[in-house]
Amino acid sequence: MNKDLLSIKDLSTTQVHDILNTAEHFLDVNQRKIKKVPTLRGRTVVLAFFENSTRTKHSFELAAKRLSADIISFSSSTSSTNKGETLLDTARNLDAMFPDLMVIRHNQSGAPHLLAKHFSWSVLNAGDGINEHPSQALLDMLTLRQRLGCIEGKTVAIVGDIYHSRVARSNIFALTKLGARVVVAGPGTMCSPLLEKMGVEVRHGIDDVIDQVDAVMMLRIQRERLAPGMLPSVIEYAEHFGLNQKRLERMKDTAIVLHPGPINRGVELTSEVAASSKSAILSQVSNGIAIRMAIMYLIMGGQPLEQLRGNP
Amino acid sequence: MNKDLLSIKDLSTTQVHDILNTAEHFLDVNQRKIKKVPTLRGRTVVLAFFENSTRTKHSFELAAKRLSADIISFSSSTSSTNKGETLLDTARNLDAMFPDLMVIRHNQSGAPHLLAKHFSWSVLNAGDGINEHPSQALLDMLTLRQRLGCIEGKTVAIVGDIYHSRVARSNIFALTKLGARVVVAGPGTMCSPLLEKMGVEVRHGIDDVIDQVDAVMMLRIQRERLAPGMLPSVIEYAEHFGLNQKRLERMKDTAIVLHPGPINRGVELTSEVAASSKSAILSQVSNGIAIRMAIMYLIMGGQPLEQLRGNP
Amino acid sequence: MNKDLLSIKDLSTTQVHDILNTAEHFLDVNQRKIKKVPTLRGRTVVLAFFENSTRTKHSFELAAKRLSADIISFSSSTSSTNKGETLLDTARNLDAMFPDLMVIRHNQSGAPHLLAKHFSWSVLNAGDGINEHPSQALLDMLTLRQRLGCIEGKTVAIVGDIYHSRVARSNIFALTKLGARVVVAGPGTMCSPLLEKMGVEVRHGIDDVIDQVDAVMMLRIQRERLAPGMLPSVIEYAEHFGLNQKRLERMKDTAIVLHPGPINRGVELTSEVAASSKSAILSQVSNGIAIRMAIMYLIMGGQPLEQLRGNP
Repeated sequence: MNKDLLSIKDLSTTQVHDILNTAEHFLDVNQRKIKKVPTLRGRTVVLAFFENSTRTKHSFELAAKRLSADIISFSSSTSSTNKGETLLDTARNLDAMFPDLMVIRHNQSGAPHLLAKHFSWSVLNAGDGINEHPSQALLDMLTLRQRLGCIEGKTVAIVGDIYHSRVARSNIFALTKLGARVVVAGPGTMCSPLLEKMGVEVRHGIDDVIDQVDAVMMLRIQRERLAPGMLPSVIEYAEHFGLNQKRLERMKDTAIVLHPGPINRGVELTSEVAASSKSAILSQVSNGIAIRMAIMYLIMGGQPLEQLRGNP
Repeated sequence: MNKDLLSIKDLSTTQVHDILNTAEHFLDVNQRKIKKVPTLRGRTVVLAFFENSTRTKHSFELAAKRLSADIISFSSSTSSTNKGETLLDTARNLDAMFPDLMVIRHNQSGAPHLLAKHFSWSVLNAGDGINEHPSQALLDMLTLRQRLGCIEGKTVAIVGDIYHSRVARSNIFALTKLGARVVVAGPGTMCSPLLEKMGVEVRHGIDDVIDQVDAVMMLRIQRERLAPGMLPSVIEYAEHFGLNQKRLERMKDTAIVLHPGPINRGVELTSEVAASSKSAILSQVSNGIAIRMAIMYLIMGGQPLEQLRGNP
Repeated sequence: MNKDLLSIKDLSTTQVHDILNTAEHFLDVNQRKIKKVPTLRGRTVVLAFFENSTRTKHSFELAAKRLSADIISFSSSTSSTNKGETLLDTARNLDAMFPDLMVIRHNQSGAPHLLAKHFSWSVLNAGDGINEHPSQALLDMLTLRQRLGCIEGKTVAIVGDIYHSRVARSNIFALTKLGARVVVAGPGTMCSPLLEKMGVEVRHGIDDVIDQVDAVMMLRIQRERLAPGMLPSVIEYAEHFGLNQKRLERMKDTAIVLHPGPINRGVELTSEVAASSKSAILSQVSNGIAIRMAIMYLIMGGQPLEQLRGNP
């Protein structure tokens, strides 16, 4: 494993498999009575979230705690970065505290790469601007593999604001690496034909694809990020791209639904869909912690673990 | 011990005694140099405070840390619950992280019960609406037992907004279970005669009871929760229901004063009273941590510990 | 070592040396793979920051974690102190939780001394009003000793708002104790001749001293604390007292620059200066954690450690 995890784009297929296999081991650890291993004892993990995110932060935090790390956590609202200090200045100060690993979420694409280049400690990208969100894609891959048996040859649709979504980008890289067929669908303003260069098929309606897929990934509409006029209206969005019971019934029996959370209920999908047997949304949460434990374990020098559960 | 601690109402008298006895053991642990036991090592405790509370949260946090648990903490201001997610949605996501125990404070009565019913992990009610606050009542019982020798046969007055106080309700249940005589006093709007059905005597002035009691529990006036007009004025409240030096002097020599904190000085009681030898307020704080350690220990499967200090 | 660390003024020269020597040991610990020792296992450290400070708080937090302490952290914005509770009331409640050590930052000079007098646990002053900031001065001493070989006989300038700076006061005490010559320079309103009674030489321009010193400590301009009119303008301040490349070049080859951070770039010093080989600013951060580990270790009863690295 490399020093850092910055993107799915730069991972080899073998590395993706190593992370997934190792994560299955940690999924078992998380279901034990004693959910703790000494892997990172005495190591310092910095959680640097320059964008708000309760869930992802808690997932990384719990992953680090279950690996026995010491954790320093800060967010933009409490840091000197507010006072006009640059990211690199902040990082230089953290560097002087001898951290071992930094988990960073930042609204600027490339921020984690900048740190990875300048410092000797490991950097784990927890979402950078509209670029990548690799741990999300990896937990999605683990979920698909668990539910579908394998990923190669499957058809996966990604629905929503593809163009501005780091979740979509990381998943497109991961899915194509693992041999899936990827179809994307979203409103015209959110789903450029340029995406075809990434090896995906572009559609403009969810109804064109929903009955053909093995899995559908519903992206979160981030209302706060949308320029006015970009999205005619939330109701209209739900009508054209939302997953409701009617559309769910058109899906294959074995097909599943993913969403990175938190769900805008009634927008990307209805509560009915979230609660259905096709929904893998809560498995994604469980897998999230296991994936993050695996990433930290491997990045800090652990050897890839054998796959513990049978997967063809 | 049951899977959860939701209320005093549903505890047996034996269970109350088991918790108090076990807490005395942890009170000793807390006075050692090494204030830590490995009971919850590798277990995950979630502190979910949907209402602000520095003290209660710190008390549970320190209790969990001294039991060696891993802790995830969140409050309403930082969680997705703000974004319109329901409590059950939030809990389902936490459930997927494989927690062992959740401490919850919520402004809706019954919220902890809802979670306890739906999930396999343990739920510890840290205050739900105007229903119960069981750990507070248990720490109050421990304090009474320490200071008065026993609780059976003693007379305890609860003074303040009885009607809207979860502290009062939990204490009424605990005191009657343990054989104390309970007298309540508060302004008419805050002290309904319906309370008599709970087995307590209702008075309307503190002066009617103060010279007869073995202990008086002063409730905190929560100004922010009061509808306008409910409380004529804080000054008038202090005059009729506040505990001052003059009233303190009318109390029995052996009688004691409790308050759940933080005190509105000059309202529920004066600084003089808080500092007097009759005040057991700081013992309540010490006992709070020990009680919460005992609850977590017993709920997670520990056996009730023998009473370490002599109590008749 | 005493029960508390309240000021540099009251430390003996031997005590200062003991802390510095012990800190060098912990500086080594911090550069190991396993940056953790069991010194404070099972001990409770309270971080009570009544003034905002990300960096100092993180430094103490990481120091306590690397010593294996259990930590309770609160800031004014989350504590009952906001509700009109006095510091002593808050501390009495904390006392009832059986802490071992409290790190306190407070805007009132003498606040830590008040607590130290009233309570049996150790108090560590992390900055009180305009009085002292002893851990800052100690980390500065360690930095000077590392870079200059020794402190005795060296000339150190402190530049900025000397009069209102607890960093300056603590450093003046430390430097004079260790036998350095101290020169201070700052705008007239910020640099009273009364300072001469503290054993320092007062100058009014940085240019009078910059070429003679072995080290210059640039103080942070705290704009929020300045009364209007006190500082004519930030630009003018930078012109007269800021350290830029031109002034840096006038310094001795071996001379170094310190700043407690975070830097107002372009005010106290330019980015060029911060990045120059003369800058010891990042060493200060590394030394900060080691110094705080050493202080906690010694205060909690550890024996002074031998100096591990050669220092004349």
